[in-house]
Amino acid sequence: MSTTAGQVIKCRAAVAWEAGKPLVIEEVEVAPPQAGEVRLKILFTSLCHTDVYFWEAKGQTPLFPRIFGHEAGGIVESVVVHAGCVAKINPEAPLDKVCILSCGICTGFGATVNVAKPKPGSVVAIFGLGAVGLAAAEGARVSGASRIIGVDLVSSRFELAKKFGVTDFINPKDHDKPVQEVIAEMTNGGVDRAVECTGSIQAMISAFECVHDGWGVAVLVGVPNKDDAFKTHPLNFLTERTLKGTFYGNYKPRTDLPNVVEKYMKGELELEKFITHTIPFSEINKAFDYMLKGESIRCIIKMEE
Amino acid sequence: MSTTAGQVIKCRAAVAWEAGKPLVIEEVEVAPPQAGEVRLKILFTSLCHTDVYFWEAKGQTPLFPRIFGHEAGGIVESVVVHAGCVAKINPEAPLDKVCILSCGICTGFGATVNVAKPKPGSVVAIFGLGAVGLAAAEGARVSGASRIIGVDLVSSRFELAKKFGVTDFINPKDHDKPVQEVIAEMTNGGVDRAVECTGSIQAMISAFECVHDGWGVAVLVGVPNKDDAFKTHPLNFLTERTLKGTFYGNYKPRTDLPNVVEKYMKGELELEKFITHTIPFSEINKAFDYMLKGESIRCIIKMEE
Repeated sequence: MSTTAGQVIKCRAAVAWEAGKPLVIEEVEVAPPQAGEVRLKILFTSLCHTDVYFWEAKGQTPLFPRIFGHEAGGIVESVVVHAGCVAKINPEAPLDKVCILSCGICTGFGATVNVAKPKPGSVVAIFGLGAVGLAAAEGARVSGASRIIGVDLVSSRFELAKKFGVTDFINPKDHDKPVQEVIAEMTNGGVDRAVECTGSIQAMISAFECVHDGWGVAVLVGVPNKDDAFKTHPLNFLTERTLKGTFYGNYKPRTDLPNVVEKYMKGELELEKFITHTIPFSEINKAFDYMLKGESIRCIIKMEE
Repeated sequence: MSTTAGQVIKCRAAVAWEAGKPLVIEEVEVAPPQAGEVRLKILFTSLCHTDVYFWEAKGQTPLFPRIFGHEAGGIVESVVVHAGCVAKINPEAPLDKVCILSCGICTGFGATVNVAKPKPGSVVAIFGLGAVGLAAAEGARVSGASRIIGVDLVSSRFELAKKFGVTDFINPKDHDKPVQEVIAEMTNGGVDRAVECTGSIQAMISAFECVHDGWGVAVLVGVPNKDDAFKTHPLNFLTERTLKGTFYGNYKPRTDLPNVVEKYMKGELELEKFITHTIPFSEINKAFDYMLKGESIRCIIKMEE
């Protein structure tokens, strides 16, 4: 049992005091864990668009001050197990290694392998080549897709995307017809699977309409705006296409994530290539800059430096 | 080999000369079968909405005179097999029994068992309780659904629908909120499967929106109007629902239909209850009346009477 169990502890934290303003590193007090909670010592963390979304606080109720960092790895510092506690927490857990979540990578990878389920030899289209889209491409690569078509409005992303198995690239801006028509022509009628990772309603419609009649499956991953409407001709369904959506790649974290870790340990999954930057905690604001400029996929922040 | 093989033969036929006007029974000449064709002697036929659709010729280019009758059973009268003929027709086939197709029953039944695939104990909603919808309900019953909710604008259909396993009935006109909300309240959040058999765009949207988050599957069967748009909030997909469409219940006639016949022969499928009327060929116009009035599901027409 940790010597600090049951006590208030002091930690360094990067505190966001205001929307869009640089975080300030300061000392904060952390209460001991309550019923069903654990207290973790974070060793490494990362930044994803979800952090940036709440940090920018556009189109939402701002909630500050707050401390970000939901994609993290560390060790259990202490645990309290109360009688009647629903969560199954092992009181002997302290010092166990913990992965909180890598939401973007899991979401994209899971959307492909758990939901779209391409078969070996399938042709797959990925809409959006950010971290989620690249993870979706990695899922297609691991599944044995013969061709992975990346669609993005930023052509410079294609070079990096090749590392994730993307074989063809389309920038919709380079064409004067809808991207689904461009894809249909490239693929003799449409792709076997499409995964939409942008949240743009037009990309969602294109992703659905670019799959092949008879067996095509499109999977929506990107989070839409609240007033968006998905709109298509219903005959596009009657020709035996399927449209699904997924949240967090349909992963059930407790039961499914150990399998993902195992795949990585066996070398079947290449995750290092998602890490484009590594910085010490003291320079955390750089991670926001990298993401805002579109330079990073994942920037690892070392908490002890 | 039939004695009439290779010759022009004379037959009785009910000819539609004009949109919506009674058919006229007269003698017609039938050419011998060409490459890859067979000539059938029809013993029984039936009428489905597809016949009525082309007979009424509303919103389409009228094509008259024409002879209807695509849901039929009979025997092979003669066959011609040419060298290089793609269709695999057995020249010894004459006098074999032939089922052309029962498109409505197969479509609805197939949509449920081949596409929606409810599990034993599932709760299933069926939109539209015509022949296709009743066949979809029969598919749910055979699959072991615990509850089958029928939705139709004609309340009198519920009584007959009970024979097809329908346990609950909703007439959307009886409620002042969308039918998907009524269904969500009845089912603690939504049905496991929904099958849409009306072709109404509003019913399609309701069918999709009434399935449960996380695992619900909606299947579109009804043929929409050419200007319809399917419209829903994309978040309805992200909560892990699936929307599919099907044409002819995803049946591949040559390989899959023998299995349906076998199910019927074993008594697993109850098809007699679809037959509400039987008339002689001379009274074929009555079959149109029954269907227009919504009185019949299937009216069998005996060709030799």
